[in-house]
Amino acid sequence: MTTSAPLKVALLGCGVVGSQVARLLLTQAADLQARIGRPLELVGIAVRDAAKPREGIDPALFTADAEALVRRGDLDLVIELMGGIEPARGLLLAAIGAGASVVTANKALLASDGGTLYAAAEAAGVDLYYEAAVAGAIPIIRPLRESLVGDEVLAVKGIVNGTTNFILDKMHTAGEGFADVLAEAQALGYAEADPTADVEGFDAAAKAALLASLAFHSRVKLDDVDREGITGVSLDDIAAAEQMGCVIKLLADCTLSEDGRIAVGVHPTMVPLSHPLASIPGAYNAVFIESRNAGRLMFMGPGAGGQPTSSAVLGDVVTAARNRVRGASGPGESAYSARGILPADEVRSRYYVALEVSDEPGVLAKVATCFASHGVSLQAVRQDGGAGESRARLGVMTHVAPHGDVCATIAELQQLAEVGAGVSMMRVEDR
Amino acid sequence: MTTSAPLKVALLGCGVVGSQVARLLLTQAADLQARIGRPLELVGIAVRDAAKPREGIDPALFTADAEALVRRGDLDLVIELMGGIEPARGLLLAAIGAGASVVTANKALLASDGGTLYAAAEAAGVDLYYEAAVAGAIPIIRPLRESLVGDEVLAVKGIVNGTTNFILDKMHTAGEGFADVLAEAQALGYAEADPTADVEGFDAAAKAALLASLAFHSRVKLDDVDREGITGVSLDDIAAAEQMGCVIKLLADCTLSEDGRIAVGVHPTMVPLSHPLASIPGAYNAVFIESRNAGRLMFMGPGAGGQPTSSAVLGDVVTAARNRVRGASGPGESAYSARGILPADEVRSRYYVALEVSDEPGVLAKVATCFASHGVSLQAVRQDGGAGESRARLGVMTHVAPHGDVCATIAELQQLAEVGAGVSMMRVEDR
Repeated sequence: MTTSAPLKVALLGCGVVGSQVARLLLTQAADLQARIGRPLELVGIAVRDAAKPREGIDPALFTADAEALVRRGDLDLVIELMGGIEPARGLLLAAIGAGASVVTANKALLASDGGTLYAAAEAAGVDLYYEAAVAGAIPIIRPLRESLVGDEVLAVKGIVNGTTNFILDKMHTAGEGFADVLAEAQALGYAEADPTADVEGFDAAAKAALLASLAFHSRVKLDDVDREGITGVSLDDIAAAEQMGCVIKLLADCTLSEDGRIAVGVHPTMVPLSHPLASIPGAYNAVFIESRNAGRLMFMGPGAGGQPTSSAVLGDVVTAARNRVRGASGPGESAYSARGILPADEVRSRYYVALEVSDEPGVLAKVATCFASHGVSLQAVRQDGGAGESRARLGVMTHVAPHGDVCATIAELQQLAEVGAGVSMMRVEDR
Repeated sequence: MTTSAPLKVALLGCGVVGSQVARLLLTQAADLQARIGRPLELVGIAVRDAAKPREGIDPALFTADAEALVRRGDLDLVIELMGGIEPARGLLLAAIGAGASVVTANKALLASDGGTLYAAAEAAGVDLYYEAAVAGAIPIIRPLRESLVGDEVLAVKGIVNGTTNFILDKMHTAGEGFADVLAEAQALGYAEADPTADVEGFDAAAKAALLASLAFHSRVKLDDVDREGITGVSLDDIAAAEQMGCVIKLLADCTLSEDGRIAVGVHPTMVPLSHPLASIPGAYNAVFIESRNAGRLMFMGPGAGGQPTSSAVLGDVVTAARNRVRGASGPGESAYSARGILPADEVRSRYYVALEVSDEPGVLAKVATCFASHGVSLQAVRQDGGAGESRARLGVMTHVAPHGDVCATIAELQQLAEVGAGVSMMRVEDR
């Protein structure tokens, strides 16, 4: 059947991204129609306060009754930009049940219960697209789901949270401490009033779960991600990183282990300046992929903001709408590998360990013996006498070792009378 | 209908990329089946010499009769990796006519007659995918066709030919001339015995045509691309670029002009070191995209070689096969904009102009007057006395100006008695 009847679209949420998407749906209507083959009609926008005016959007479109909107029964597409688990989850399942395809940017929902959404979409024969859920405007979901689907992805490493990248960048360039830079980022609108999701790494961990799921054809959930935020990163860490020719980045690291399990974590990590991820500035995001055949790929671009994110949402909208027009559907969940998750203690990395010791003969030997007794071999040790009063600072770079062995080493080091209490450790990216 | 019958696949061409694709189809069969939902069966490989043995591939698969292979009538997919216009074009049209979807890496064919292939695929309800035609393993076709399809792309600029990037890189780092580095690249296998397609920019121009077509939803052909190779790049140019804080790259530049026409060219271009494209090393490729909403994106990775290219081919194979299993089809041609091509003389750029003048009073004023009389304003002029015997070298950086006006200026400069014959010019990328 050829028809030029409009495809009916509902929008859930009208914040920074939602209002931009709504405006683009209205102002770019002719282009979108030409690209899809049929016009899109925005039939309703669910918001908390339907009376609040939004510039450039017809007030008649707003409704506070999201449930009724998704259950109209005539929707082709539902765009969900409200975030959070509920009511987003229930509304999307209702929309899918009523036969609508779904475009969402909701990484938290996908990382906690994506399997349920995928299964519902599969059963209903509709699409589930979520390019905007990871790395804003950077096309990364589609390349993983489709372009690299004939290859074997070995690792995906990304700077996927712009707020923390901005803060770490500023700590390096301005030499200011975490709390000061965070306050500045909040004043500039780069960080939320409650910055927990960003600075504690929850946002990046949800994205890591999505990236790992797609890369390794397995279901990886938020709880599988070993997560550490940047609140503990000190100016001493920053200085140590610079001494080692590195910068500290909050890295989402999804790597296939030698035994086929998935290592997935989010950690502040020293990245050598020669690595392509080292130079990603400010609020930019970047994702680095290593795969068997394609080799080393990198994607970079703006990681957040209303305009970039709306670009990713609209790309999905056009793709899902085209599928609708052609009676087709996009890729479903690919979780056939069902790989296990490598326990955090078994994940292998290089580490930089900083400790304060008494400056007397034999201490270095004791420290080195302690590492050796846990099977952790050292690549370099650097002693810096300047800790005052017969104290010295040691910086130890290990070879690749399991996290658990490094932790055990540190626990033992802290028992030594010659070692001060504040032993710190940080992962170091390989190249 | 649910079936587990294999999808039948034929391969045309079995060179470096083709043999790698064949091997992966055979060795990765279980993974590919899991990702597609049905097994793939490689039923035949068309080659010139069917008797020649290829390691790891059953000799019974080879045939010299490509025509019979594509006309079997039971093919689901045809992968074309032979290159060139004919017989590839006729074979693909026959395959499409017989109901097969097509995956190809043939940029020359697509850039000269892509419209015919698209129309045939549309009529037959089959897919046409060609991720491997541009920038090897870097997913760039799919992001343009699908991820950015809801945005307005303003410019696509890329280093899309690894051979020329390797040569220019080496000229910069080793200070060796074009001919020497080319000979070296040939010895290393980075350049072909007949390097014309690479060093004269034909390969990059075909890719520019494909990128511009997708970015601007318009049909852009090879002949529309203003093309200049790197054979004229001298060590003087390299030195001048370095003095200006730039490196020379062979840049494929697709830009939407202010009046909505398409400016598309391939030229050696001075790229400021601060630009993300400046640091792309050796045989790597990178594509930089600027779009209305997504902002500035960059994609980088290996641009050629059997393994990376086979990754792109197999990604398309899985996508086309999944569509087959679901009774769906991928995106067709999007050329609704039907934009005009901006004539080369009207394309605007900054330029660096180098000339030799007699070192006497009033010459600089004469030169500056000549630029001004053609409406070309200057950003910087640099005089270097060291040309010997009362001659001086001038390096002139212009503001953005139309190509035709800069050419007219140079033609007039060459008439001046004070100016030597060898006036050279080169585009300079803005930032």
